[in-house]
Amino acid sequence: MSVAVIKIHVMSVAVIKYDRGMGRWEPNARGRLERAALELYVERGFEQTTVADIAERAGLTERTFFRHFADKREVLFAGADALQELLVTAVVGAPDSVAPLDAVAAALEAAGALLQERREYSRRRQAVIDANAGLQERELIKLAALASALAGALRRRGVADPAASLTAEAGIAIFKIAFERWVKETGPADLPQLIRESLGELKAVTAGS
Amino acid sequence: MSVAVIKIHVMSVAVIKYDRGMGRWEPNARGRLERAALELYVERGFEQTTVADIAERAGLTERTFFRHFADKREVLFAGADALQELLVTAVVGAPDSVAPLDAVAAALEAAGALLQERREYSRRRQAVIDANAGLQERELIKLAALASALAGALRRRGVADPAASLTAEAGIAIFKIAFERWVKETGPADLPQLIRESLGELKAVTAGS
Repeated sequence: MSVAVIKIHVMSVAVIKYDRGMGRWEPNARGRLERAALELYVERGFEQTTVADIAERAGLTERTFFRHFADKREVLFAGADALQELLVTAVVGAPDSVAPLDAVAAALEAAGALLQERREYSRRRQAVIDANAGLQERELIKLAALASALAGALRRRGVADPAASLTAEAGIAIFKIAFERWVKETGPADLPQLIRESLGELKAVTAGS
Repeated sequence: MSVAVIKIHVMSVAVIKYDRGMGRWEPNARGRLERAALELYVERGFEQTTVADIAERAGLTERTFFRHFADKREVLFAGADALQELLVTAVVGAPDSVAPLDAVAAALEAAGALLQERREYSRRRQAVIDANAGLQERELIKLAALASALAGALRRRGVADPAASLTAEAGIAIFKIAFERWVKETGPADLPQLIRESLGELKAVTAGS
């Protein structure tokens, strides 16, 4: 499956997610809450912000907040579940002929293309996470869950262990390094391109040893 | 540097650590506390065990416990700092001619040879961690810190980023998968051998894609 085809898959899942998140009388409540929360975390700090503050800034009620997010921490990580679903769908759906790591890398690139449209959001989110140890732990847990889900998707493709687990961990390493470069780079940076470079670098590192 | 030479490096650091941990009138207090804590965590569960219980079981005082460990959680993770120091020392000390991933893999194998002598301890420790979400988080944080330290060691060898970070992450992936197999395997299992297999598998996975 080409990156383009995977991207279409991924985008249709994203659109479904988006629609589910919209209340009839609160167009894009979820997005408004996300933006309000991030603004406040940047302005006041994560610890100093309450759910009431977020709802007020978004012009919505706390009740609406809790229909979308379990707590103020989850606003920053809600996207991780969608990301995981997208990656798993893409990996499981890749043609049998595609090598395991290529299936993972293509899925990551497709997800990267979606994230690319939210670079400024991602950078500000990362700054908030970098400033808080508890949020960093949560990020590590999400990445570990992602590795585990990717390994499961590879097993569904008939990849045996330990290859499935190792490929999944390699995929997460590729993504992590590319993502770090993408948010830190001061000039323009293309996440799918950085993911491709990161894959190439991993291949060079393993081939050269 | 050969694995044997790295092992000698690693063991001398380990011996220094061990000596530091001994009080004059409490021979191997640290080891006794570790064993007592693990026994109790397995018998009663981690949450249900207090520092007072651990000290009593070890025939030592709480005061002695706190000279060795910050809290009851750290008993399970104290070895991680030593492991990190050993790995960094081995990676920095490897000859210039050794490829980055090989330097990391040789260091991991040498550390694996030391861990091999504590397999039963490692298995019981893992069962305690698997039963507690908070401990799993702590384990992820330690692994992330280890990846970061390895990347730093590689940079000191003149390896540029992103290769340094990617090699470190690949090393952690290799170790993680080998370690999981090692603790789960019901029959005999050799950790350094599993680390070599895991490296080979990663090479196959990246070459085949």
